Amino acid sequence: MSFLNHTKIAVIGGGSWATALIKILCEQHHVQIRWWLRNQKDIDHIRKFNHNPSYLSDVVLSPKKVKVFEKTTDAVKGADYIILAVPAAFIQESLQHLSAKHLQGKRIVSAIKGMVPGQNALVTDWAADAFGIEMKDTCVIAGPCHAEEVALEKQSYLTIASTECPAAEDFAALMTCRYVTANALDDLYGVEYAAVMKNIVALACGITHGLGYGDNFQAVLVSNAMQEIGSLVTALDPRERNLSSSAYLGDLLVTAYSQFSRNRLFGNMIGRGYSVKAAQLEMKMIAEGYYATRSIQELNKTYHVNLPITNAVYSILYEEQAPAAVMNELKKLLK
Amino acid sequence: MSFLNHTKIAVIGGGSWATALIKILCEQHHVQIRWWLRNQKDIDHIRKFNHNPSYLSDVVLSPKKVKVFEKTTDAVKGADYIILAVPAAFIQESLQHLSAKHLQGKRIVSAIKGMVPGQNALVTDWAADAFGIEMKDTCVIAGPCHAEEVALEKQSYLTIASTECPAAEDFAALMTCRYVTANALDDLYGVEYAAVMKNIVALACGITHGLGYGDNFQAVLVSNAMQEIGSLVTALDPRERNLSSSAYLGDLLVTAYSQFSRNRLFGNMIGRGYSVKAAQLEMKMIAEGYYATRSIQELNKTYHVNLPITNAVYSILYEEQAPAAVMNELKKLLK
Repeated sequence: MSFLNHTKIAVIGGGSWATALIKILCEQHHVQIRWWLRNQKDIDHIRKFNHNPSYLSDVVLSPKKVKVFEKTTDAVKGADYIILAVPAAFIQESLQHLSAKHLQGKRIVSAIKGMVPGQNALVTDWAADAFGIEMKDTCVIAGPCHAEEVALEKQSYLTIASTECPAAEDFAALMTCRYVTANALDDLYGVEYAAVMKNIVALACGITHGLGYGDNFQAVLVSNAMQEIGSLVTALDPRERNLSSSAYLGDLLVTAYSQFSRNRLFGNMIGRGYSVKAAQLEMKMIAEGYYATRSIQELNKTYHVNLPITNAVYSILYEEQAPAAVMNELKKLLK
Repeated sequence: MSFLNHTKIAVIGGGSWATALIKILCEQHHVQIRWWLRNQKDIDHIRKFNHNPSYLSDVVLSPKKVKVFEKTTDAVKGADYIILAVPAAFIQESLQHLSAKHLQGKRIVSAIKGMVPGQNALVTDWAADAFGIEMKDTCVIAGPCHAEEVALEKQSYLTIASTECPAAEDFAALMTCRYVTANALDDLYGVEYAAVMKNIVALACGITHGLGYGDNFQAVLVSNAMQEIGSLVTALDPRERNLSSSAYLGDLLVTAYSQFSRNRLFGNMIGRGYSVKAAQLEMKMIAEGYYATRSIQELNKTYHVNLPITNAVYSILYEEQAPAAVMNELKKLLK
């Protein structure tokens, strides 16, 4: 068996989502994974035991298909696709040793649902700019999909979005297997901004839950959030889109309602009285929504869209406003 | 204190939703409730102890504001509004002693989220027809709102929909209190059909949950359901509507995701292997979605809208198809 016709995919990042994506890709016969992880202990463990010790540790990582690397420059060698799957806050640091030359002719797939801090830029925009990649050679993987359920092989659906459908379709084919259906969509910006926004909404859901609001309130919060997402996305990239489809609404629901959502968990701690710092210390994982809130708030200084939920979360996380008082004001704006 | 200027409201039905609505209405100073319940034991208990022994039994029903009646003809006497709050399957029987004369000049408020069996008619349509009431004098109460959270005084939102806004606004004012915000909407049919459909969706959510599908799948199911609801409602009553708003999406979410949803619970039992009969016996409460599924299926013989989720639920509940096999086919139609 020759490896020459195999699709080679570099994966940057060692978290649960990266591990789940590798599991899905390994269902294909002709795929080779070149995996970069930051943590040397994890690398050693995977080489020795074929399991990621830190995340989804029951997933088998066959050495026939998965090779791990200490250096990003080695991982991307010969790769057709580069999947970015580190928290947005660490993307610049993680790719610091890569230049345009390393990524020439490769497609970039962002599995990150956040914005590059300090730049208020989507990951695809930032990567295209930083490495001279054409937008048509970038795409994003959007949910609705929790890594934990992929590990359990529960039926899941993914949306692969690009500026042009053919690019997304190629990658969607790679991501489709027995328990995952991946659909292509030509709305890169809409899907990516909606994915960023849903983490802010999940934070808001967690905060209100922590404050004692119930299911009735959350249903109204999420409905209003869907409209807020629609308003922002339309302002940033006006076009026809069906906001009720899985790529937008589904992605929001899985994050806002699921027990697996780290953003909701983070918000819940804030609502129950933890300070931002204490909640961050207690959680091992990064809540993208924390950074997204600031990025969207900054970005919206240009667009002036009415974003009451984002404003509320921002004032709690960054302006030390009391969650109870802020949500008491927000509830008057919802309907 | 004279009762002459009080708004008199007859409530037909003794379940949890009726009890919750009475609790909300009693927050108004100038309201008198004339309550008809079918069960004599409940009537006696309420008269003696001022609590409904069967549902939301911690809610205090002040005898100064709430009067209970054995006969519907007595309950509706002098009432300005008649709230219908029995399961749709029992509406004809419950109102059998009332004629057009009894209801003359009164407004009908349907708190029923189902269709009249055998007639495949919305409750408002049926009532208007049966009692010669003008459509502008009917309205519906829609969620997103679980009775149980109203009893706990958790912040909730209601939508009062009528064919014309002023009628809905009058009643919305009566339903607004410290913990409830009621908004008026002029989309009677859209809201009422969406409310009927959401119970079918909650059944589907319950069935798939019972079969072992997870949060990822449910997010996709609910997104597709929102589109299915949109298609049906547009076919039945074409007009502009914001399906992401609380009256439609919110109402769906609270039912599909909440632990309090009896439709979801009923579906869950079916998914776990109970027969329809066994599940109905085990549950004390009626799952409206069971009847709604047949009504919508019948109705759609005229409209031919693509309703894959409704079809799936119908074939499980009425054609004895195996839930696992049906959902396995449905999952191929979702995206």
